[in-house]
Amino acid sequence: MTLVSIDQRSDLLQRFIEVRRFSERLVESLSPEDCMVQSMPDVSPTKWHLAHTTWFFETFVLSKCPDYCVHDERYAHLFNSYYNSIGEQYPRSRRGMVSRPTLADVMEYRRSVDESLRKWLESDSEAAAKLASVIEIGLQHEQQHQELILTDIKHVLSQNPCWPVFQAGKMDDLAEPTMHWIDHQENLFQVGFDGDGFCFDNEQPRHRVFVESYQICDSLVSCGEYLKFIEDGGYARPEYWLSLGWQAVQNHVWAAPLYWQQDGDSWLEFTLSGLRPVDLNRPVTHVSYFEADAFARWSEARLPTETEWEIASAGSSQQGNFVDTLLDQGMAIHPGAAQGDHSLFGDVWQWTASPYVAYPGYRPPAGALGEYNGKFMCNQFVLRGGSVATSSSHIRSTHRNFFPADTRWQFSGIRLCR
Amino acid sequence: MTLVSIDQRSDLLQRFIEVRRFSERLVESLSPEDCMVQSMPDVSPTKWHLAHTTWFFETFVLSKCPDYCVHDERYAHLFNSYYNSIGEQYPRSRRGMVSRPTLADVMEYRRSVDESLRKWLESDSEAAAKLASVIEIGLQHEQQHQELILTDIKHVLSQNPCWPVFQAGKMDDLAEPTMHWIDHQENLFQVGFDGDGFCFDNEQPRHRVFVESYQICDSLVSCGEYLKFIEDGGYARPEYWLSLGWQAVQNHVWAAPLYWQQDGDSWLEFTLSGLRPVDLNRPVTHVSYFEADAFARWSEARLPTETEWEIASAGSSQQGNFVDTLLDQGMAIHPGAAQGDHSLFGDVWQWTASPYVAYPGYRPPAGALGEYNGKFMCNQFVLRGGSVATSSSHIRSTHRNFFPADTRWQFSGIRLCR
Amino acid sequence: MTLVSIDQRSDLLQRFIEVRRFSERLVESLSPEDCMVQSMPDVSPTKWHLAHTTWFFETFVLSKCPDYCVHDERYAHLFNSYYNSIGEQYPRSRRGMVSRPTLADVMEYRRSVDESLRKWLESDSEAAAKLASVIEIGLQHEQQHQELILTDIKHVLSQNPCWPVFQAGKMDDLAEPTMHWIDHQENLFQVGFDGDGFCFDNEQPRHRVFVESYQICDSLVSCGEYLKFIEDGGYARPEYWLSLGWQAVQNHVWAAPLYWQQDGDSWLEFTLSGLRPVDLNRPVTHVSYFEADAFARWSEARLPTETEWEIASAGSSQQGNFVDTLLDQGMAIHPGAAQGDHSLFGDVWQWTASPYVAYPGYRPPAGALGEYNGKFMCNQFVLRGGSVATSSSHIRSTHRNFFPADTRWQFSGIRLCR
Amino acid sequence: MTLVSIDQRSDLLQRFIEVRRFSERLVESLSPEDCMVQSMPDVSPTKWHLAHTTWFFETFVLSKCPDYCVHDERYAHLFNSYYNSIGEQYPRSRRGMVSRPTLADVMEYRRSVDESLRKWLESDSEAAAKLASVIEIGLQHEQQHQELILTDIKHVLSQNPCWPVFQAGKMDDLAEPTMHWIDHQENLFQVGFDGDGFCFDNEQPRHRVFVESYQICDSLVSCGEYLKFIEDGGYARPEYWLSLGWQAVQNHVWAAPLYWQQDGDSWLEFTLSGLRPVDLNRPVTHVSYFEADAFARWSEARLPTETEWEIASAGSSQQGNFVDTLLDQGMAIHPGAAQGDHSLFGDVWQWTASPYVAYPGYRPPAGALGEYNGKFMCNQFVLRGGSVATSSSHIRSTHRNFFPADTRWQFSGIRLCR
Repeated sequence: MTLVSIDQRSDLLQRFIEVRRFSERLVESLSPEDCMVQSMPDVSPTKWHLAHTTWFFETFVLSKCPDYCVHDERYAHLFNSYYNSIGEQYPRSRRGMVSRPTLADVMEYRRSVDESLRKWLESDSEAAAKLASVIEIGLQHEQQHQELILTDIKHVLSQNPCWPVFQAGKMDDLAEPTMHWIDHQENLFQVGFDGDGFCFDNEQPRHRVFVESYQICDSLVSCGEYLKFIEDGGYARPEYWLSLGWQAVQNHVWAAPLYWQQDGDSWLEFTLSGLRPVDLNRPVTHVSYFEADAFARWSEARLPTETEWEIASAGSSQQGNFVDTLLDQGMAIHPGAAQGDHSLFGDVWQWTASPYVAYPGYRPPAGALGEYNGKFMCNQFVLRGGSVATSSSHIRSTHRNFFPADTRWQFSGIRLCR
Repeated sequence: MTLVSIDQRSDLLQRFIEVRRFSERLVESLSPEDCMVQSMPDVSPTKWHLAHTTWFFETFVLSKCPDYCVHDERYAHLFNSYYNSIGEQYPRSRRGMVSRPTLADVMEYRRSVDESLRKWLESDSEAAAKLASVIEIGLQHEQQHQELILTDIKHVLSQNPCWPVFQAGKMDDLAEPTMHWIDHQENLFQVGFDGDGFCFDNEQPRHRVFVESYQICDSLVSCGEYLKFIEDGGYARPEYWLSLGWQAVQNHVWAAPLYWQQDGDSWLEFTLSGLRPVDLNRPVTHVSYFEADAFARWSEARLPTETEWEIASAGSSQQGNFVDTLLDQGMAIHPGAAQGDHSLFGDVWQWTASPYVAYPGYRPPAGALGEYNGKFMCNQFVLRGGSVATSSSHIRSTHRNFFPADTRWQFSGIRLCR
Repeated sequence: MTLVSIDQRSDLLQRFIEVRRFSERLVESLSPEDCMVQSMPDVSPTKWHLAHTTWFFETFVLSKCPDYCVHDERYAHLFNSYYNSIGEQYPRSRRGMVSRPTLADVMEYRRSVDESLRKWLESDSEAAAKLASVIEIGLQHEQQHQELILTDIKHVLSQNPCWPVFQAGKMDDLAEPTMHWIDHQENLFQVGFDGDGFCFDNEQPRHRVFVESYQICDSLVSCGEYLKFIEDGGYARPEYWLSLGWQAVQNHVWAAPLYWQQDGDSWLEFTLSGLRPVDLNRPVTHVSYFEADAFARWSEARLPTETEWEIASAGSSQQGNFVDTLLDQGMAIHPGAAQGDHSLFGDVWQWTASPYVAYPGYRPPAGALGEYNGKFMCNQFVLRGGSVATSSSHIRSTHRNFFPADTRWQFSGIRLCR
Repeated sequence: MTLVSIDQRSDLLQRFIEVRRFSERLVESLSPEDCMVQSMPDVSPTKWHLAHTTWFFETFVLSKCPDYCVHDERYAHLFNSYYNSIGEQYPRSRRGMVSRPTLADVMEYRRSVDESLRKWLESDSEAAAKLASVIEIGLQHEQQHQELILTDIKHVLSQNPCWPVFQAGKMDDLAEPTMHWIDHQENLFQVGFDGDGFCFDNEQPRHRVFVESYQICDSLVSCGEYLKFIEDGGYARPEYWLSLGWQAVQNHVWAAPLYWQQDGDSWLEFTLSGLRPVDLNRPVTHVSYFEADAFARWSEARLPTETEWEIASAGSSQQGNFVDTLLDQGMAIHPGAAQGDHSLFGDVWQWTASPYVAYPGYRPPAGALGEYNGKFMCNQFVLRGGSVATSSSHIRSTHRNFFPADTRWQFSGIRLCR
């Protein structure tokens, strides 16, 4: 987490209010019941996300305010996620067991913390300057949880055999995508963040990497292309799969992306807008690293490394399908919902071939916030580019997302390289 | 399920309305969030109980009405419990995943079904006569689920480290219980139901059993007596335990009844009225068959067979602490809450030494309702007498409740025999 | 365990030598490798059985001899099965991990203990008199383990895709069995052991039971009859199954008895004599209680209670297919191998409808041998009659065998009642 | 697998005979029972290793011989490890279930295949030339399994509470190790194999990597240093651990390296020479990646990347404690058994910080042998340098071993970097 210097408190506060409000906008259509459900251990109830992000500001910012009285002592235990240095946590896999505080209580918690924080910062310019960088981390953190609110509620609603609709958005008609290979020459490159704005600690230090010549595809893999892989027996042929991937296929009986289901001869897909026919021209999503890797091998290509992706993104527009723009336009939160001149950004996070490791010379920050990124550097793969569930202001070309290889409930897709 | 002849529709309807209302009275203090939680596979969300009992009337009664339109086709899948002959069921262990229909939707479902049923029966005396016995089963079934609503919500709230209060009732002060052994002489007895009112199919046929002389205790085992067993190392001495019981102690790290927790030198107990000190003079509850059996062996006694219990209860008053009387008096729903001249009934279900098997000549009824009792006759033990969560109108001396030997979340306790 | 008075040491010693030798005869065809394998937690390696039975005599008999030096101190830990009062046990599920002592070491252990015991008893008539009853228990115990040696090695060899032959015995040709119902009138009966010879503690006290009129079948259910149940969709129709049985069918994907496998249109069965076609005229075996119960329901009959079985066996010859007679005649160890005038005894253990519980007034003996039977009285069903793996001298009409309802690796079969 | 040109068949055959004989030398002290045991799914029985390596030669070499008759058709199913393109495999986790073929049968299988292969190659120089490279892979493959024979039998024997001795070797007295940091300057390096001899496919292509300046330690972490980490509460302080590592510590209750056990105030260690006091001056071994990483963090250092390790090893002697030299000298197979001027090689495999991924441009070979390395490139970390269980002729500075982060049964240890 780079320290940012923000001269004007009002800008920071304005951004604080906007980001916090956006979380609440996301959950407008949800009932208290919807916000209770934890459909698998990886998923958290919506209510928990709303409370945890609030706890983050209360713990890392407001608790420094001499006058502040903790809203409810018991929330520290309930809404700490994984910060061992802060104290013990209620078990992650049992978050759906806690009916009280209710959703209304949590909304009141948000209002109370927001109001206290606003008042304090307005009255104490020194504190505001000192805590600006932590507040910025808190906002980025909240944006990450906004993405999780969407991916988690999608998984929650998918458990319901009545296929509920989260949001009824529009979708553009899409033409069949065309695909071109873009050339890049071998060189010693600089990668990692060195700009002025915010970045996470794991995007630094900027450092040198030697990369051989390669070609990267200018479009995402579509559902149509992926369906060819399925129809060619891709899920039944071990030669395309990593050994662990083949085990996952057997154990979970995978035969298509998560949320696809066969309906006679055609395929349906559960989306945030309900159950719909699979649109062959849209990017495929909700595939694991294993599926992305097997598809690439079947295509006689491979996944890009994160360095190759980052180099390719230099100079690229960061326009794309992100949740804030989609909502503003009344579009569905679904890859390819809005047609456009797509760059490497938006629609789906793209699995890279790179295990998530520390950059040379990386050191996590001191204190509890040091637990943010570094301790997860094992058995995860880097994803790049953001998705339809990401806010446009949250993405950078150096941003490293990461998930285990069998993860499917994020909006994860495929870009090929060779 | 014995067919009862009920002359007057109005009596039946009156009872129907009262029983259905009582379910709603039980959940008055609960939020939509409380009613969503499934804290373990054995527990169902409150909302599910409210819907399932309604589905029972809709399926087994209303569906015979020629004019009736099913309230929502999708509910059959969601709210069928285990009737294989009716159709497939949503998996039991995932009932807490279904946020929609909401609690409000389910309440509307109840109102709609109740109204349709009431109108139909008022307008069609023949149907009322024909379906009286099925309606009676539905009411008994609803009373069983009322008990489960209470035991399940207790388990749900116990997951919450803030120890929520379900109902803040009063508790009488109790003196230390005295214990006497009551003699019974050997004989060939008749057991099982043969009265006029309602009974479940598993209480029949009435049949002969030869029983040797025995003595049964006139009072329930108290928390104080049970604490002596704990303090004597009862949970650490395999010689008192069945082999499977000893495994359960090891696997679950049992060291006291469910809901007890040590607080320095004293013991606390989570109750429907929140966390309270264990009262040594009240009956111990939330013990498994294994614990009841081990306690009995430690006491140089044994558990009664269900026949011994039934013989002992002949002529006994069926007064006792039942949920309806406790609520009417503003008492806590807790064993021993109201002092009185207790018989064998109320306070806690009493584990018997009898595996749950068919009575000689037993045959389950034809059709789906035949799945009610018979198919569970394996690896369960019979309990007798009813508990604080039972309605007083639901209990009989021949009533056979049954649960697996490791069950602890019911209000189950101990009466000794020798 | 009833104390038997045996006047002549020589008879006892003679029997001791014969029973001990029979264990060794059973394992003659096995390699050290065969004797190492534990194919599931319920199964023990042959080597373990040979050592454990020896440990039993060393611990409960020889250790009383003032001059005796324990053969190897470490064996107490390795070869104690479940006697908590004797000390800690090496975990049951890991018995196949212990390669040393080797089979040769264990055989030496047997020789050494047998020799010491023989010498002591020959030299000390008082000890012989005093310990006669414990020695008798040890011999009965060894006979139980002889049966387990056979059922366990069958399961072990069945894991091997090469289908090894344990013993190549002959089999008589059998005609299709005929079936008659035998009438029994209602009465107050005496059941349980009260003879002069040996019995286990759980066969006592003899006591009175009232039994209604019933009919019991004079022959065992054959493979041909069972195949009709399979072909009628028995494994796919929940209405025939107990709820737990239906779960077992789903979880284990049961579709036929253990050891049956489909081979095109016909069925093969793995036997102790290798893989053979299923013989429709022989008794079906290796079915669980759940399957026996479902078959009975499909047949519009039921399983007998253990009392009904015991009454029916009064006056019946105890001739039948038992392991000692089969081996002497060079027959295969397989139900129905030798044709004959079969009674209720031999061929297969018959599941009864009776959960395994204490007889009225039962008390386990004091000391470690009290752990023999009583602590298993939970979630098991009684089987009667003995099987092809039982020794003929080990069976009595009052003998109560017991196993959990999902057990299939014993020679368990079906006799109908109604 | 680089193709090697070998002019003289006799050299190849000589090496074939030596490597094959060495496998048999390793198992000389083992009984048939020892060779049967599979103590966890990762471990294979010794007998399986002896058969599988033979199957490898039979399948990939001898099957090309027109006259060859397969030794036993059934072995393909039993002794194929993971080559999906060859056919189905007997489940890995059940290898300890297969008692037949016996050890003697497998030894006969070895003799038969060796003899057939020797005769064929002696008679057919063209075949020898053509298959030389596959034979070389087979020999390298056998050496890998020789290492596994040792690590697996150590795990097997450790399950036995009698602590059997595999081999009673000598151990030098060692002085306390001294530690120096060796400097390396930043540069663009070439890494990967490009020599004349054998290498595995995953060591290629040789390629360029930019590396920043670093320091690497000239000695391995000793038991004494590791004990300080333990005594400082290393296993109880989450701040030193990766998140998955901390979970592993909790789940497995790790508190010391595998095979260490506390004995009052001191520590014992199970070794291939039996149970011995931990020698503080020898290299620590049997630690997981998680423990190596946590120890490094506690030491304010880090693990080297595999590139840093490979650069540091340039020009280093490949002398060290390897199994063949240790056995020839009568030393124990234990890290630090023989004192000497140690380089980076031998004693223990050293965990690197590098996830196991493909080198740029890597392509697995065509055919079944392409399943050798590439499909395991997920969730594993690279280890370098060889161990006391490795043959000295099997190691190279470019050799990449790999195991999952929680692996402890290999001879894995720690070298620090910063």
